[in-house]
Amino acid sequence: MALSGLVKAFVFDVFGTVVDWRSGVARDAAPFLARHGISGVEPLEFADAWRRRYGPAMEEVRSGRRTFVRLDVLHRENLLAVLADYGIDPSRIPAEELDELNRAWHRLDPWPDSLSGLTRLKARHIIAPLSNGNIILMLDMAKRAGIPWDAILGAEVVQAYKPMPEAYLRTADVLGLQPEQMCLVAAHNSDLAAARQCGYKTAFVARPTEHGPGQTTDLTAEADWDVVTRDFNDLADKVGA
Amino acid sequence: MALSGLVKAFVFDVFGTVVDWRSGVARDAAPFLARHGISGVEPLEFADAWRRRYGPAMEEVRSGRRTFVRLDVLHRENLLAVLADYGIDPSRIPAEELDELNRAWHRLDPWPDSLSGLTRLKARHIIAPLSNGNIILMLDMAKRAGIPWDAILGAEVVQAYKPMPEAYLRTADVLGLQPEQMCLVAAHNSDLAAARQCGYKTAFVARPTEHGPGQTTDLTAEADWDVVTRDFNDLADKVGA
Repeated sequence: MALSGLVKAFVFDVFGTVVDWRSGVARDAAPFLARHGISGVEPLEFADAWRRRYGPAMEEVRSGRRTFVRLDVLHRENLLAVLADYGIDPSRIPAEELDELNRAWHRLDPWPDSLSGLTRLKARHIIAPLSNGNIILMLDMAKRAGIPWDAILGAEVVQAYKPMPEAYLRTADVLGLQPEQMCLVAAHNSDLAAARQCGYKTAFVARPTEHGPGQTTDLTAEADWDVVTRDFNDLADKVGA
Repeated sequence: MALSGLVKAFVFDVFGTVVDWRSGVARDAAPFLARHGISGVEPLEFADAWRRRYGPAMEEVRSGRRTFVRLDVLHRENLLAVLADYGIDPSRIPAEELDELNRAWHRLDPWPDSLSGLTRLKARHIIAPLSNGNIILMLDMAKRAGIPWDAILGAEVVQAYKPMPEAYLRTADVLGLQPEQMCLVAAHNSDLAAARQCGYKTAFVARPTEHGPGQTTDLTAEADWDVVTRDFNDLADKVGA
């Protein structure tokens, strides 16, 4: 695979691609829900409901209706909204507890192959997140899990949320690289399509249980991405890292 | 030293504090000068002359007379100017060679104690550069030398050059920390003074040969900084890392 010689930097979608957000958020939501006697919702369902507000919240920023704010802020607002959806008045819960639960997103575990694949890719390439997560979120996550990023890039550095072209183009510019020297690694076909539109190389990694056992989306590559892989070790094999 | 419990992040000046810019730039300038028959200047003198243009170039941005541009751009412009100062017409030199010499700043070696001290501090704290160097400059330097930063912060992320207060305050904000939870580590009294003015804790590290054997500035701490140290291992000892 000639990609390895051409591509100087592999940049990664993170939520779902590098880490398992659904299990991690549910794990931290469980004691919170129990403590507050919230019995009408399973922790995994709570994680899904919280996550469903992610796209629409960012769309407010992408559309220009709202100036850029970091994802921690959107996650915190979405937490209040999802609690209200389940009939819980968030003003009855101490702010510190809500802050602590909001940091569940900083404590997500990598998929089993993530660290070994990233470590191999790092030997001869720049590796960095190109996530909509903000800097301290990505930093806390990496420090806890041992993810060996060369730098924390992404939405907060370039002040633009994916899939806006600016998110991809400015990230290449920060690294002093042409878009074709960048490869986005993602488990989401739509993210890869937006990156390719900007001139990036693309690598699909299947994460068939990101949304749980009944997942129906992104089970397979839906276009001829430059590399199609089972996991990060398979990616490292296929690019010769 | 109570600093270790209070401070969550140690952020570092880099040029002079973490790495020896003068020897590194001279090392890469030497073959360039020889190749072009430039005999009227010693490599170390060339490094000093190039560095002297650093402050004034940033001052154009700090003053608002120029919009923010990353340091690689200023270094490149300063290279043309310093060559002209020595009577060399830079337009006679291929752009690729100038680009390559400009990347000498990406290839600087850490002082002997830097990596061991940083590794110790990293175990219980966030460590990151708070340098005026741009992201790819800091990333290339770290990858080459093995500097284990948790993230690349600094001027490009916050779009402000030290010692502007924004450089310190926005960096704390990116980490979700109060200024008093930040400690700047620097070999330069003026940098520490600006950080303290913003509420940061301060650690002085003596680098008595940054400017060569005849150095006359920053030989000692010129205020009661929170920690005053000989090197990064001494710093790790003194903060209990």
